[in-house]
Amino acid sequence: MEITHIEHIGIAVKSIEEQLPYYENILGLKCYNIETVEDQKVKTAFFMVGQTKIELLEPTSEDSTVAKFIEKKGEGVHHIAYATKNINDALKEVESKGVKLIDKEGRAGAEGLTIGFLHPKSTGGVLTEFCEHPEK
Amino acid sequence: MEITHIEHIGIAVKSIEEQLPYYENILGLKCYNIETVEDQKVKTAFFMVGQTKIELLEPTSEDSTVAKFIEKKGEGVHHIAYATKNINDALKEVESKGVKLIDKEGRAGAEGLTIGFLHPKSTGGVLTEFCEHPEK
Repeated sequence: MEITHIEHIGIAVKSIEEQLPYYENILGLKCYNIETVEDQKVKTAFFMVGQTKIELLEPTSEDSTVAKFIEKKGEGVHHIAYATKNINDALKEVESKGVKLIDKEGRAGAEGLTIGFLHPKSTGGVLTEFCEHPEK
Repeated sequence: MEITHIEHIGIAVKSIEEQLPYYENILGLKCYNIETVEDQKVKTAFFMVGQTKIELLEPTSEDSTVAKFIEKKGEGVHHIAYATKNINDALKEVESKGVKLIDKEGRAGAEGLTIGFLHPKSTGGVLTEFCEHPEK
């Protein structure tokens, strides 16, 4: 498996609208995309910082996993996503080494990526995502 | 203020030794430095992923802020560090815009960086660090 860089950092927020001024006016980052991912029940906002995106995640439903995360832990970093090649091979490889998977195979994520989550029980408490870019 | 990239992601762990196999054998990253930062009461381990470092933080004392973080929230992402130029100017700028600071001025951090923390109350729950490289 080859990880090339950190694709994004997912941050759980109650309201993207309320957090935008911090990211745009204080940190000076530019939101270039806002997108709703229906099957994850989140609205997402993206900022580019070097190679890596900041992805704000606002739950669109009370039964969204992000809503549950905020209820339990408060707003804050929700997951780290590593850019990998051949995501299905990467998921199989880590599973063969004993990692518990949330997704056995890649599925469609925001921004046209194929994504798959590893279970935080296997990753030292860090919800971890693999991402594959469509062209790579 | 100019943020160039994400310098590192700090992850609180109970034991670096116990987490090394996940980062090295499963993710395939290479730990290139282990360093103790006495005044923060942590042992740190670094892995490079593209432009960004993963920094594991193991408390060396029960009264370390990282020990308290783990006690309260469990192991997981502790902070995000943005690479900035002129850190003291950057800290002043965000303070002038209403951000509460933990560090009013840059101080010595791991790996020869000058660092300063913003308070998570001002940053949507994400403990946020600015870092300046010595040569930049």
